[in-house]
Formats: sequence, C-alpha cells, structure tokens
Amino acid sequence: MSGDGTLFLRVDGVEMDPETASVMASDRAFGYGDGVFRTMRLAAGRVVAWNRHVQKLQADLSRLGLARVDIGRIEADLAALGGRYPDCVARITVSAGLSARGYRRAAGAPLVTSVRATPLPAWPADVAQAGIELHLCRLRLADQPAMAGVKHLNRLEQVLARAEWDDDRIAEGLTLDGTGHAICGTMSNLFIVEDGRLATPELARCGVEGVQRARIIDWARQRGLALEVAPLPLARVQAADSLLVCNSVIGAWWVHRFQGRVHARPAWHGELLAELARDG
Amino acid sequence: MSGDGTLFLRVDGVEMDPETASVMASDRAFGYGDGVFRTMRLAAGRVVAWNRHVQKLQADLSRLGLARVDIGRIEADLAALGGRYPDCVARITVSAGLSARGYRRAAGAPLVTSVRATPLPAWPADVAQAGIELHLCRLRLADQPAMAGVKHLNRLEQVLARAEWDDDRIAEGLTLDGTGHAICGTMSNLFIVEDGRLATPELARCGVEGVQRARIIDWARQRGLALEVAPLPLARVQAADSLLVCNSVIGAWWVHRFQGRVHARPAWHGELLAELARDG
Repeated sequence: MSGDGTLFLRVDGVEMDPETASVMASDRAFGYGDGVFRTMRLAAGRVVAWNRHVQKLQADLSRLGLARVDIGRIEADLAALGGRYPDCVARITVSAGLSARGYRRAAGAPLVTSVRATPLPAWPADVAQAGIELHLCRLRLADQPAMAGVKHLNRLEQVLARAEWDDDRIAEGLTLDGTGHAICGTMSNLFIVEDGRLATPELARCGVEGVQRARIIDWARQRGLALEVAPLPLARVQAADSLLVCNSVIGAWWVHRFQGRVHARPAWHGELLAELARDG
Repeated sequence: MSGDGTLFLRVDGVEMDPETASVMASDRAFGYGDGVFRTMRLAAGRVVAWNRHVQKLQADLSRLGLARVDIGRIEADLAALGGRYPDCVARITVSAGLSARGYRRAAGAPLVTSVRATPLPAWPADVAQAGIELHLCRLRLADQPAMAGVKHLNRLEQVLARAEWDDDRIAEGLTLDGTGHAICGTMSNLFIVEDGRLATPELARCGVEGVQRARIIDWARQRGLALEVAPLPLARVQAADSLLVCNSVIGAWWVHRFQGRVHARPAWHGELLAELARDG
C-alpha cells in the first residue's frame, strides 16, 4: 500500500504504480473538477450494487454533457481488483479528459477513467449497536439545479463542511441548504424516522442522489414502510425519533446523538444492514 | 509543445515532461477540486501585476482554510519560464495536497504547487478595434458566500456555461445569479459604462474577484471616473452604453454586440489597454 493508502490504481485500463504520478496536468478533473466519480464497496471480490452504480455513473456523465464511459473496461479493472483485494473500497473517477487551458472542452476528447482502491475504513467495531454522533455544519449548500443530484468532482463544499470538526467521536456532519432545510451528510444521504414513517430530503436544488439512498427507498417500499421524499426543515430532523445516514461504503449508520439530543436505533436497522450488504 | 498545448511544466519546483503524467491520483485537486489557481500573462519574461497575483493567491488559500504557499519557489519557476517563453500564459495551481480517500484533509499535508505555461491565445488581430460578441448564458451561478470571490478549482459552472455555445464569433458568455443579476463572464469580470460612469457587479455571493477587475477599479479611481460596485440587474447591462469584460490574459475587451444590441467602444479603451499592459 502506498503512502496515501492506495492499494490498486488503473488509468484507462493500464496498471499504474500508486507511488508515482498517473494524471496529466492538463486533465480537466485536475484543472476544473470537470468530471464525475463513484465510490463503491467490494465484498467477496465484487462491487455491491454494481448495476446501480453503472446507471448512476452514465446518468451523471450525461448531466454534465459528457459521453458515456466504456463499462466493459471498468469491469475488467474491477475484476482484477476483486481478485487481489476482495474487500476494499473502489473509486471510479471519470474526467472530461485532456484539453488546452480554458473552460472550453476539446471536441471529442476521450474521457479519462481511473479506478483507485483503498482499504475499508476502520470504523468503531460497535458502530451498528452504538450509533454515531452527527455534527450540524455551518456551511450551507448552494442551490444549483444544473448539477443537483450529480456526484461530480466539484466537492469543495463537502471539504469545507468536513473541515468544521476534528473530533474523531463525530462520524459525520449534516449540511443544510440556504433556507435551512436538511439536504445531505458531507459523505452520505439522510433518512429520518417519524412514528415509523421514513422521510428523506428532496434533492432537486443541491445534494447528491446516492446509490445507497435509492436502495433504501426501494427497500422501504418493498417492505411496506411509508416513505416521503420532501423538503425537510431542520426542526423535523431534530424532532425525529431516528436518523440514518447512508452511503455505499458505510451502509447505513443510525445517529445516536445530534445537537445534544439522543435518538433511537430503528427496530429494523439490523434487517436493513443485511439487505444493503447483499448485492442488488 | 505537447499535444495539450503545454510549453512548460513544473510541479513543486521540479521540471516535468509535459507529455507524461505529473499529478498523483490522490491529489485533492484531482479528486475534489480542493485548491485554487491563478492564470497570468507573461510579457517580456515577467508576470504582469505579479504582486497582486501573489496577494490574491494567498488570500484565496486562506479562504479555503489552506496554508500559505512558498512564493519564492514559484518565483524561481516563473523566472525559468520567462527566460524560455517571455510572452505566454502561466497558470499556477495550488492543491490541498495528497490525502487518503475522503473529504477530510490530512493534517499538515504539504500543498502541491504546479506551474504550467501555454501559448498566448490567438485572438482576432482587430479585437481591440472591433470588439467582441457576448452570449447570455442560461446557466445561473449558485450563491455560495463561503467561496464567493475565490478562484478555486471547482469550476464546473464555468465549464457548463462555456459549453452553451460553439460559435467562434462569440468570444465570451455572461452569467447571471439566480435573481437575474449579472455577475461575471465565464472567464472574465464585467464592467458597464452608463453616461460615463463605470459599474461592476458586487461579488459577495458568487463570482470571482479577478486581479484585472481590481486593477480597473484602481485605474478608474485614479483617473477620476465615477465607479460603482453594486448588484447589477441584467436590464442595466442591456441598456448600458458600453460593456467591458476583463481578465489577466485578454486585458479588457469591449463588447460590440450583446443580445442583438450594439454597444459602443469607450473613448478611453485604448488608454485602459495601455495601462493594463504595464506592470502594476
């Protein structure tokens, strides 16, 4: 493993030494954040919920006006990765490719696709039982309907929000929009539980529509749990019985403490975790 | 010159081959757009308005919670560049450095500084006399006071706005905020002239406060021209006698045509160009 935690790196299908440079200075991801990415969990050598990640990746590229990516080559990369590191985190980054200086993309420039793997993070062993503490971020997410929902490479809002706390006992931070509605965690989507009913923020103006969020929405519907996708004022989050934050790496954590108030673990949390650990 | 137009490239003071990879996949500029940049003009081997660029670079780093950069090393890079390519465009990119996966920055991680030079763009020879055509962009800039004014590496709004037109006769596009106020060009700042008085948009909620904008503000004040920094509704831009777009590479272009209406070249435009071409 390299100094920055990289286990495995391929760029456009070519194996790279994680200790040496592999990105061109003219890559538009480096220069402008012009591209998208996916962060995924490998279990037993396979990406969990791969088909959903493929759909989301292609949809996000389309939202930015970029071409579709060659999934076959990425699958070959992931197969090689899974053979060597069956349980890890993989990140696929697709940039708009190389260009001369300037915001204008070069017509027909090939996308640049990289696959980087890192170890599973070392969360506290009892996080499923103990829950997490959630920070309320001061940074407010900007409204940008042109990019809302997309997991693009312009992530300074999340970087600045994550820099608000340094206490390792706090596992995640919640970000609001400019009107005080809850949108996302810095690295996760949010669900709340009110009298057994689930709700998750609408993400039409900011936030990322994560794959794990979509899986939980589908699971709730299949299980017959009421679920609402709507603007969620902070007060509703504060008053909720339970809060969950989810992403493709952590699964779904329940929030034990938020702004000094204690919340409960949902009765079905263990069942949900088992469902998310399955492929689908 | 390399295929992507790079004349010269140094990363952390080390000369790199522009044809080969020079950025680590774990660089936070590549992963998240976590960093800032400056684009500058070299004339007769020196960066025009270098002291202002230094101040702006350090101020922008501070706004993102990053450390100050080593200006001495950058100056050595630029001196080497100026000796080889006395008239060119230089871009300094300062990233938050390398880190493990995730939005959290590594404590004390060194910044990564690169200097890349490209040729002066080939603008039409008569642009000073003929003016330019300006497009009105559909994309609206998001309000984000935490980063407003900063030339950071999250530039997807500018990329998407620039992708709105492909007609080489249109040299720039104007972007508005969500309330319909004019903010910036995709790569420039805006000034308007009304009955001899100058005005430029206030940039407290979005947009970049460019060095050339600051120089024009100072020039106007020294010359005794009335100048207002204020929110500028689109209607004021449409009705103005003259429009100017400026940045450190182009100097200041006057707009001949915007939304079908013809605007005039300011009487002092030649004088302003001469001033901006001087160092200071």
